[in-house]
Amino acid sequence: MDKQIIVLPGDGIGREIMGSAKLVLQSVASEYGHRFVFHEHLIGGAAIDAYGTPLPEETLDACMQADAVLLGAVGGPKWDQQPADKRPEAGLLGIRKAMGLFANLRPIKGFTSLLGASPLKQEVVSGSDMLIIRELTGGIYFGRPSERTDAGNAVVDTLFYERQEIERIVDKAFQSARLRNKHLTSVDKANVLESSRMWREIVKEKQKEYPDVTVDHLLVDAAAMKLITQPDQFDVIVTENMFGDILSDEASVLTGSLGMLPSASLRTDGVGMYEPVHGSAPDIAGKGIANPLGMILSAAMMLRYSFGLEQEAKEIEDAVDTVLEQSFRTADLAKEGDRVVTTNEMTERVIDNM
Amino acid sequence: MDKQIIVLPGDGIGREIMGSAKLVLQSVASEYGHRFVFHEHLIGGAAIDAYGTPLPEETLDACMQADAVLLGAVGGPKWDQQPADKRPEAGLLGIRKAMGLFANLRPIKGFTSLLGASPLKQEVVSGSDMLIIRELTGGIYFGRPSERTDAGNAVVDTLFYERQEIERIVDKAFQSARLRNKHLTSVDKANVLESSRMWREIVKEKQKEYPDVTVDHLLVDAAAMKLITQPDQFDVIVTENMFGDILSDEASVLTGSLGMLPSASLRTDGVGMYEPVHGSAPDIAGKGIANPLGMILSAAMMLRYSFGLEQEAKEIEDAVDTVLEQSFRTADLAKEGDRVVTTNEMTERVIDNM
Ligand SMILES: CC(C)[C@H](C(=O)O)[C@@H](O)C(=O)O
Ligand SMILES: CC(C)[C@H](C(=O)O)[C@@H](O)C(=O)O
Repeated sequence: MDKQIIVLPGDGIGREIMGSAKLVLQSVASEYGHRFVFHEHLIGGAAIDAYGTPLPEETLDACMQADAVLLGAVGGPKWDQQPADKRPEAGLLGIRKAMGLFANLRPIKGFTSLLGASPLKQEVVSGSDMLIIRELTGGIYFGRPSERTDAGNAVVDTLFYERQEIERIVDKAFQSARLRNKHLTSVDKANVLESSRMWREIVKEKQKEYPDVTVDHLLVDAAAMKLITQPDQFDVIVTENMFGDILSDEASVLTGSLGMLPSASLRTDGVGMYEPVHGSAPDIAGKGIANPLGMILSAAMMLRYSFGLEQEAKEIEDAVDTVLEQSFRTADLAKEGDRVVTTNEMTERVIDNM
Repeated sequence: MDKQIIVLPGDGIGREIMGSAKLVLQSVASEYGHRFVFHEHLIGGAAIDAYGTPLPEETLDACMQADAVLLGAVGGPKWDQQPADKRPEAGLLGIRKAMGLFANLRPIKGFTSLLGASPLKQEVVSGSDMLIIRELTGGIYFGRPSERTDAGNAVVDTLFYERQEIERIVDKAFQSARLRNKHLTSVDKANVLESSRMWREIVKEKQKEYPDVTVDHLLVDAAAMKLITQPDQFDVIVTENMFGDILSDEASVLTGSLGMLPSASLRTDGVGMYEPVHGSAPDIAGKGIANPLGMILSAAMMLRYSFGLEQEAKEIEDAVDTVLEQSFRTADLAKEGDRVVTTNEMTERVIDNM
């Protein structure tokens, strides 16, 4: 297989962990006889510094023609005072929207060998394995108006959804549930928001097309609780953009480290962008100690979802499991008795185990 | 002291737990020579059944003249299919708005004798003691438009704030932090929402008036994580309506039971409404097993915030602590070895310990 991959390291630890993902992918390529060509472009703060904009045209052009994009992380205090459209995050939101990546998949499971790192009791976390599907290109992130009004004395943001935007993400969720344990939890705030009432109606309509999938509806406040008290009760969760942002970060605590978690942002044709759930961690950038596993597991998701290379994806994931079982940990996860490794050492360990 | 208290039992377990709060208040009254007169009115589903509206005029009139309102809980599956303005929750939202109760205070601390009931590890929860201050009468709960558009093919909700609405809740938060450990965490989504950017600006402006209070700003997704991983790092949290709804329910897991948690909804003149954080729990309604402690502790907050009766409030709170130390538990909290009690028995235990 011959693939061109757009690589956007971004800011902070983005460049370090992206190096890890590339090494792992090169190793897969030579083992299986694939050819992966990486094309690197700037995004986020790095792009602001170079071009004055978080999403330069040449980056966008490259992404629009790509089969797959790997993204490290964007943002940092350096650019926090910029106006809205000149912030690193605007680059990320712009790419998601421009590429039409409406479905954000965040698998979250308790890694057996990491249970100790979770703030939750072992018996609560154990057995939990969920997939959070977040709508990624609509809702209050993109609705207009989003501006000051009344001469700066008031402010408005707009939560807007078209019916078809909700339908396609709900379809994606039902299809994903079919491939897993056939249970879907739809999260909304239907007792307050009109958008949530429409969301709930659409889930109920769609349910008729997927009679093999059981469905329940949870209010977002109740969901925020249940994720912690009964995480093993979830299979697939589907929710709108902002709720998904909050709940998927919250659910990351189950694993004991945000650094472990990958994500895929997809549209229907298999094109996707893959990025770890964690941020750019400016406090540890450049020290060579960042946890590369979220990025490496995101690369595995790319192999699976954009290239259909299930076996290769699985091999990476198994290698990560093995390395964790061998007690190798980057600093974010290390507990007494663990073998603390740098970003590069962790990457080598993973490659050695493939 | 002679006080008229409006009592709104509401739906589900609301009536049972309200009975408990009244008994406890009567006991305080006879001990300290106060006179509390209770005036009961309908709200929520009960009001829909009787009058066809969740907030009858006579209920609203009574509340508008009250010093203090006690509310049980509203809602239930029976009314879930009603149009938006004919749902039980609309009664609650309507009263909050009409009375101008913009500041919702939710104190959350790990009860020492309940640490075992939390899904979090003891060493993570222990020492956590926070006050979440949620803006309660603005934001996306009340902004207009909130409706279907494009012939039902799209939907919009509106997050709207006036500057002064943000200023007054931020002031309340700084003042509350002064009375506690002088640390304030403001939660927003300033990397995406314009309303959050204005929120953050206002917090920074106000900070100049409270130089003795330290402040940090957290994105809502990061906050959802940190509440679980480092709950003891918080003192006072201030956030807008929807974020506060989600985060305060999430933080309730620290205590091991939503049933324990009280709340106060205040305006600046001391008038307030007091309600437990939990819902109407229709599944256990009428069985006499509901946990009355959230309601009883809400009554204590009323004594403190609306009537200035600090000693009386403290006496109730201490009695609750004592009863828990004696291992009395309602079913929601009971673990092996506990003495399981009904709603009424728990109430008697509390009164006996005052
Ligand atoms: C950086 C930010 C805009 C982004 C989001 O909120 O979508 C991030 O938190 C995420 O979850 O990918
Ligand atoms: C019942 C509902 C409208 C309400 C809210 O979201 O405000 C409840 O969840 C709460 O937190 O008091």
